Amino acid sequence: MQPIGVFDSGVGGLTVAKELFRQLPNEDIIYFGDTARVPYGIKSRETVIRFSIENILFLLKQNVKLICVACNTVSSVALPEIKNHFRVPLVGVITPAVREAVYATQNKRVGVIGTKGTVNSRTYENEIRQLDPEVKVTAVACPLFVPLVEEGWTKGEVVIDVVKKYLEPLKLARVDTVILGCTHYPLLKPVIEEVMGEKVALIDSAKQVAIEVKKILSGENMLNKKSHRGRHQFYVSDNPEWFNGMAKSFLGKSVPDAKKVNGV
Amino acid sequence: MQPIGVFDSGVGGLTVAKELFRQLPNEDIIYFGDTARVPYGIKSRETVIRFSIENILFLLKQNVKLICVACNTVSSVALPEIKNHFRVPLVGVITPAVREAVYATQNKRVGVIGTKGTVNSRTYENEIRQLDPEVKVTAVACPLFVPLVEEGWTKGEVVIDVVKKYLEPLKLARVDTVILGCTHYPLLKPVIEEVMGEKVALIDSAKQVAIEVKKILSGENMLNKKSHRGRHQFYVSDNPEWFNGMAKSFLGKSVPDAKKVNGV
Repeated sequence: MQPIGVFDSGVGGLTVAKELFRQLPNEDIIYFGDTARVPYGIKSRETVIRFSIENILFLLKQNVKLICVACNTVSSVALPEIKNHFRVPLVGVITPAVREAVYATQNKRVGVIGTKGTVNSRTYENEIRQLDPEVKVTAVACPLFVPLVEEGWTKGEVVIDVVKKYLEPLKLARVDTVILGCTHYPLLKPVIEEVMGEKVALIDSAKQVAIEVKKILSGENMLNKKSHRGRHQFYVSDNPEWFNGMAKSFLGKSVPDAKKVNGV
Repeated sequence: MQPIGVFDSGVGGLTVAKELFRQLPNEDIIYFGDTARVPYGIKSRETVIRFSIENILFLLKQNVKLICVACNTVSSVALPEIKNHFRVPLVGVITPAVREAVYATQNKRVGVIGTKGTVNSRTYENEIRQLDPEVKVTAVACPLFVPLVEEGWTKGEVVIDVVKKYLEPLKLARVDTVILGCTHYPLLKPVIEEVMGEKVALIDSAKQVAIEVKKILSGENMLNKKSHRGRHQFYVSDNPEWFNGMAKSFLGKSVPDAKKVNGV
């Protein structure tokens, strides 16, 4: 049976891969991180689309049966444009999080945090509005969150100050639900919870995305029925050293066998 | 007369370009920023070398007479490897700053701050040791400085806390001179000065690099002798919007006519 493909601009998508590994233990999964060109969050729509198509073509060469776009920037900026280009099913991270947030909110005020690309695309607002036009959305770009997480600064005074500064508009808007609209942000969950207060629900799409992937494969009768554990392969476009160092925080284990791919 | 070429991974090199414009007002100057693949500071030696060669080849197509490598990561990681590959003179930012720092220090303790790539390459230490083996160097990578500057956070409590945290080893080492080993850092000069104290000399290579470029062109009789002002052209590998927005902080003016180059 063919493997599942997953890609991200770098390491963030590993928080999604981790949940796929958990929910689909028998599936072979190929992860690609475009670490030579990371990050995507500040780059233009045209460039994110170009990089995404190249990443999808790489995974198609690996003969994948479904591609999980484990990156909010790609899912919100590129996916609306290219989702009908390919025969392989493409599963993004936006819709599952939107469904969960609209379900969770009591006061119909939802916050969204993400990269500049994600926030400027307004994809989250549009999808929420389609599902429930009464929900008021406050979206804030938090460009320093990714570098903080990659520097390993996920607690302490400095981080709390940065998080407070960015989340002020969400507190003022009195949202009761916040979508963590970037695959890096689950690592800041404790600090975001501290700043927003315990009563605010934090939505992290990984779990819902994995459920969605399972549902699609099941519907198409494409689930792997073998009983032994699936094989996990990791490819990157820069040397694997940095990726492997980061993997521990995102995946809970290191990935010593990640392979560099040339020419992506 | 041929133009001068300048390149950087993104916008930081504009602090060097600004000084070139000032000291060489009659020269035509072509700036290239690799904004589709920015940043270079966390990427591997092999990848930085590959990107640098591609950038140099782009500038050579523009028929430049000299190339100024306005990026500390490229100058320290790639330049030692590729400086003899090309016929065109390549001027990096390390040597001019090293000369100035060794001249400035009284207690022979010099600090260096830069990206992970720059610090891990140990190029600054090696060049300082060659010039004066008695100088003790303390080098610290400050990965959050670039995102802070690009977010426009160059003053205030959060920035002071981040700068304090990174510069602690330099204070403990009692350096009297600090090399700002990244073209973004001049924008943090006031905060770094506040944290290190007024008696510590901060070395920013832009001025010395421009002097070096002038000297080389003069020695080769390649200075532009025309009396009218030179033409400045800007090329980028991503859409110019982000670059243009940043240019104001780095160059003191916006660059509405930056052109996107395909296929770099």
